Amino acid sequence: MTRPLLLTLGDPCGIGPEIAVRVAASEGGVLLVGDVGVVRRALGHAGLQRPVASIDGPRQVAAVPPGALAVWSPPGLPDGLAELPMGRIDARAGAAAARCIEAAARAVMAGEGAALVTAPLHKEALSAAGIGFTGHTELLQSLAAGPDGGVPPVRMMLANDELKVVLVTIHLSLRQAIERLDFESVLQTLRITHAQVRGRDGGAPRIAVAGLNPHAGEGGLFGDEEVRFIAPAVQAARDEGLDAHGPFAPDTVFMRARHAPPAHRGEFDVVVAMTHDHGLIPVKYLGVEQGVNVTLGLPFVRTSPDHGTAFDIAGRGVADPASLHAAVRAARDRLGL
Amino acid sequence: MTRPLLLTLGDPCGIGPEIAVRVAASEGGVLLVGDVGVVRRALGHAGLQRPVASIDGPRQVAAVPPGALAVWSPPGLPDGLAELPMGRIDARAGAAAARCIEAAARAVMAGEGAALVTAPLHKEALSAAGIGFTGHTELLQSLAAGPDGGVPPVRMMLANDELKVVLVTIHLSLRQAIERLDFESVLQTLRITHAQVRGRDGGAPRIAVAGLNPHAGEGGLFGDEEVRFIAPAVQAARDEGLDAHGPFAPDTVFMRARHAPPAHRGEFDVVVAMTHDHGLIPVKYLGVEQGVNVTLGLPFVRTSPDHGTAFDIAGRGVADPASLHAAVRAARDRLGL
Repeated sequence: MTRPLLLTLGDPCGIGPEIAVRVAASEGGVLLVGDVGVVRRALGHAGLQRPVASIDGPRQVAAVPPGALAVWSPPGLPDGLAELPMGRIDARAGAAAARCIEAAARAVMAGEGAALVTAPLHKEALSAAGIGFTGHTELLQSLAAGPDGGVPPVRMMLANDELKVVLVTIHLSLRQAIERLDFESVLQTLRITHAQVRGRDGGAPRIAVAGLNPHAGEGGLFGDEEVRFIAPAVQAARDEGLDAHGPFAPDTVFMRARHAPPAHRGEFDVVVAMTHDHGLIPVKYLGVEQGVNVTLGLPFVRTSPDHGTAFDIAGRGVADPASLHAAVRAARDRLGL
Repeated sequence: MTRPLLLTLGDPCGIGPEIAVRVAASEGGVLLVGDVGVVRRALGHAGLQRPVASIDGPRQVAAVPPGALAVWSPPGLPDGLAELPMGRIDARAGAAAARCIEAAARAVMAGEGAALVTAPLHKEALSAAGIGFTGHTELLQSLAAGPDGGVPPVRMMLANDELKVVLVTIHLSLRQAIERLDFESVLQTLRITHAQVRGRDGGAPRIAVAGLNPHAGEGGLFGDEEVRFIAPAVQAARDEGLDAHGPFAPDTVFMRARHAPPAHRGEFDVVVAMTHDHGLIPVKYLGVEQGVNVTLGLPFVRTSPDHGTAFDIAGRGVADPASLHAAVRAARDRLGL
């Protein structure tokens, strides 16, 4: 094993551990980051029998025997994680999940891991643990802060075989999201998208921008954000040479970008959406099994599945690992592996 | 011909007239409502040759010769409509479109027509004509006002073979839509949906409610509308015996309701969405060809296609009439024809 992909288990009480062990058991080159007891419990939930090799860090993966699951339990995890009831919000679970992400991200930034793939967190468990971040994206952005404390601008991209969407705002109330939008946030999203997303032809991406309001404001009749700053940001991006278009009516732009050949060829490679749900509703509509979340703008590759902890089925061994498999594939693809 | 379906041409400068003449030419029992010159021009655009029978009202349809297109040009239309350039916003076009809807709706309410099917309006043309309504729904609601001036509560439903969505708010900026939402508007939408939408089993509909905020507020972390009034409205509806559920995360509830058997059986018959685009993005994602707009709550049946005037292709004869055909079928279905 060369530099492994680091795969965090996510919330120990959700489906993360069981899908993570399934993926690690069938894909080579994956180091699980989490409590070793939680990994053993998850193997039981998944109905898998595999030896577990607990190591002290990514550099030791070469010593893991073939066929064993490599697990790194970073220092500082709470005790008793494997005894927490499944499907419940628990502050210890939230604390453990955040600690694993922190350790794994630092290892990847130190060059010890090739990329970071993360199983789902539960945001209320994070909050119960006093973690001041609402999700992976915000936490990773903070961990990637420079020596001056400045955080890199990052954006969440959700992608499946048909559609790629980059979000200007994510984990905010819809009211706050509208307040947060401005010329700079839209233009910065366009720049990050241009820099980090390839077009289907291998070149620069053809980017569509979805408006905020119904009918993209219908010429100002239903809201002025398009006129005030979305259209100007698209124009500024075009002036910089980006292949950006819009703003278009939100209710049809995703249909127009959907790429399902031969019957339907997408007009665009990626859509920039102003709000979490404008972007995620169409990506998830046909099923979350193949969806992947990619954080654009970090100094390393990070992907995750596009579903949550699914507390209602956690521990029953029925959770579908397809999206997590897709996240591992997407990470390798972005690394050129 | 018994009582005809009244089909308004929509904006004379959009694709409405050409798709309307295609539908009227292939479906019996349809009376076109619009300028007779515009109908003749649309026949040319569509490459159709049909005699046109201009009549003075729906009661005269029995006198229309077989094979002829029946057209009613209500009094009060501007002159020169057939000379307006295609694909342009024009106040005369907006005024004509509104006048035809008014005349057709009054005829249906007077029992002279079986139902109203409407081709697309252009909202900026309406506005240019000084019409104080932002779309069909608001205009029809006003026309259906009682003698005391009270307007009936109506809601827009968009439906295709896979998904039905009813919207709490429609043609408002997103900011205004959030302000307008409250316990009453959500509960009223649930009551209208329950009363007017059948379940797939023929009984009462199983209704899912989509939240407003990301993750339906994630327990209050991202907005409190779910906690303050959406969940209470769902509970109040359940207390009245409605089969209502939620609020659910907007980004996955439409996927869960999608009915595409045998691979995917919808968990719900219909989804209530808080905003125009939360609801319309998924309905339109797979294509607008089969989508139908149904106005729930009017004292008559009214349907329309779920696309707009498509000024970019108007007059070229390439517009797809499938959604308007679907609207005619949906109107007949609701009438039990």
